[in-house]
Amino acid sequence: LKETSHAELTVAGFTGTGVSAGIRKDGREDLALITAEKPVPVAGVFTQSPLAAAPVQVAKRHIRSGRARAILANSGCANAATGQAGLAAAENCCQKTASALGCLEQEVLPCSTGVIGQLLDAEKIGQALPKAVKSLSAYGLGQAAGAIMTTDAFAKTARQEITIKGKPVVVSGLAKGAGMIRPDMATMLAFILTDANVDAPTLEAALRISVGWGFNRISVDGDTSTNDTCLLMASGKAQNPEITADDPEFEAFAFAVTKICQDLAAMMVADGEGSGHLIRVRTTGATDQEAARQICYAISHSLLCKTAFAGCDPNWGRFLSTAAIQSQRMGRPFYPEKTRITIGNELLVKSGVWTGEAAEEKVAKIMKQDRYELHLDLGLGEYSFWVLTSDLDHKYIEVNADYRS
Amino acid sequence: LKETSHAELTVAGFTGTGVSAGIRKDGREDLALITAEKPVPVAGVFTQSPLAAAPVQVAKRHIRSGRARAILANSGCANAATGQAGLAAAENCCQKTASALGCLEQEVLPCSTGVIGQLLDAEKIGQALPKAVKSLSAYGLGQAAGAIMTTDAFAKTARQEITIKGKPVVVSGLAKGAGMIRPDMATMLAFILTDANVDAPTLEAALRISVGWGFNRISVDGDTSTNDTCLLMASGKAQNPEITADDPEFEAFAFAVTKICQDLAAMMVADGEGSGHLIRVRTTGATDQEAARQICYAISHSLLCKTAFAGCDPNWGRFLSTAAIQSQRMGRPFYPEKTRITIGNELLVKSGVWTGEAAEEKVAKIMKQDRYELHLDLGLGEYSFWVLTSDLDHKYIEVNADYRS
Repeated sequence: LKETSHAELTVAGFTGTGVSAGIRKDGREDLALITAEKPVPVAGVFTQSPLAAAPVQVAKRHIRSGRARAILANSGCANAATGQAGLAAAENCCQKTASALGCLEQEVLPCSTGVIGQLLDAEKIGQALPKAVKSLSAYGLGQAAGAIMTTDAFAKTARQEITIKGKPVVVSGLAKGAGMIRPDMATMLAFILTDANVDAPTLEAALRISVGWGFNRISVDGDTSTNDTCLLMASGKAQNPEITADDPEFEAFAFAVTKICQDLAAMMVADGEGSGHLIRVRTTGATDQEAARQICYAISHSLLCKTAFAGCDPNWGRFLSTAAIQSQRMGRPFYPEKTRITIGNELLVKSGVWTGEAAEEKVAKIMKQDRYELHLDLGLGEYSFWVLTSDLDHKYIEVNADYRS
Repeated sequence: LKETSHAELTVAGFTGTGVSAGIRKDGREDLALITAEKPVPVAGVFTQSPLAAAPVQVAKRHIRSGRARAILANSGCANAATGQAGLAAAENCCQKTASALGCLEQEVLPCSTGVIGQLLDAEKIGQALPKAVKSLSAYGLGQAAGAIMTTDAFAKTARQEITIKGKPVVVSGLAKGAGMIRPDMATMLAFILTDANVDAPTLEAALRISVGWGFNRISVDGDTSTNDTCLLMASGKAQNPEITADDPEFEAFAFAVTKICQDLAAMMVADGEGSGHLIRVRTTGATDQEAARQICYAISHSLLCKTAFAGCDPNWGRFLSTAAIQSQRMGRPFYPEKTRITIGNELLVKSGVWTGEAAEEKVAKIMKQDRYELHLDLGLGEYSFWVLTSDLDHKYIEVNADYRS
């Protein structure tokens, strides 16, 4: 994974900035503003949690028109589980942004990330807005990425360039979220900007596909945080003939957006609030897709598997046992004698039994690498799935036990 | 929780011992033998994992007769995922024990705990058996408890005394297992011995009830390790008139066995492979029992909730968010405005909103206690459930990342 430099993020038709609004106690930049020159097509995917934060509720309402002028995102406060007062605060922030930019309140999409249960101080946001608007710049998207970080160790940005009907098109993404795999609610915010000329329904179609192949490999639908939000805006400045979902060009566009989502997702797992390894957990030979998926998640989420990853320990019994129990829970068959486990390119378990000391020594070396694949074949059917996960080490506990203090 | 001294464990009609058979590399005692004077009624509950270890497969077959003479349990090797060779080794150990004791092979129940995937060395067990049989003693049940420990920080034993139809009756229990909540497969072994006069079907009935109120509050049916085994044997030495499941005395007996299971379960969570706090997570006001249960487990199993427990951090947003997402996953309603969270005796969330700084300060103090209750009321219905859980701190990772080395 290559981090994108801030300058490289530039997308024609968009400006961005990150300033300090005093929401965070440490004085760090905590308010991101991203604007389009005029209202442009937009699509969004949001958390399915019944405890969806106030900004999510407001953004879902505002996005219905399919057009937006600005994204206003703060860190340091999730404004979730804050009742009517939280809704009023989120709306108030949109009003203030709209009047600062000279647009409609409904053209502003609010996002928040931070501790659940704290009410957002709309006054502080209002006081910081003039400075934010003044500092908006085509080169400021990187600052916006910095301002939405919470426990992230680094800002996450990615860029793709493609050609659509002879016109060069740029897709840039910025995100925050540190590797916690579901259902553990580290909020994910991702903003994807493109200069392509695309209508809102086509953006929506591309975003659904991309999230499925990207973020849903680290955090699955319905297992999301109170504040998870992914937005895709298109300025049209590339002046390509408009893409619709029926065009042959749609695929190339959706692929570029998918690549952005996958890169950002991998960065989130690699950040991982203290993780040292990035592991692709792949299950093949399942009786059905859902079984493959849930077994990937069970291994990715198991404390004992995660600590084995941290210890670079080829403790295959834990992986196999986790898969066995997940199969049993789902009422699916599981035959140990049909299973195989390969780590990196080394076969560690064949017909459910250890392949021996030599293979284990090789695997122990592979598990010391920054990134590798654990491949479990169930030997039952045609279906497969993969997810990205991280290990669990001391730093995770430090970061999360003391997050609020 | 009061630990029971080894001498206090004594149950008329039973002897026990713990010796070193060289299965563990560190030379610690690793072989437990518990015997009845003659074949006596027995009942068992076993893992439902499709990867059930060889000793579990053998013990399930042997227990069908409803009578047993001995339990043979080793630590240091799970003999799970070891195929036909593993089954042969477990059977061989039973044969050797039977000839050493002068009983039938089918009257010996084998158990193993340790690393999955390692084949049990039946020769080593055979060589240690004469020493084990020679050292059997009425006071040796505590040694047996010591010999089955793996990552346990202390041996788990419990005792109850009751009177049945005028006769004093003793129930003693010993167990191993360090607090990992499902689905994280730290093997649980529990052996419960009584001098009551009870037939096997009644033992079976009492054990099912007791496991439901005890071990299943920390590790649920179907989410168990490869080797989980709980056995209940009755010597009849108390000479009470035989209890059957229809007797009024059955309830007192089942209650005593339940108390043993609950005490042993609480010790497992308190041991918890590095945990510092024992938390009772209680969900009330659910629409149905399964929802209450799964919400308890979701909170107990969440890495972010567990690290909040470790940090003594009243991070109620994490608890509420976990419950919201679990409800959504199960297709159950969830209304933030109906929820309440009480920690200890302090109301921290009312109508889904924080009750304020004063309450939070009190809760932060409560969360520093060794044990406390987190009570979530959903405000939806009549159903409730509780489970015991532990926090997650640095020691857990140390213990589990390096378990095999």
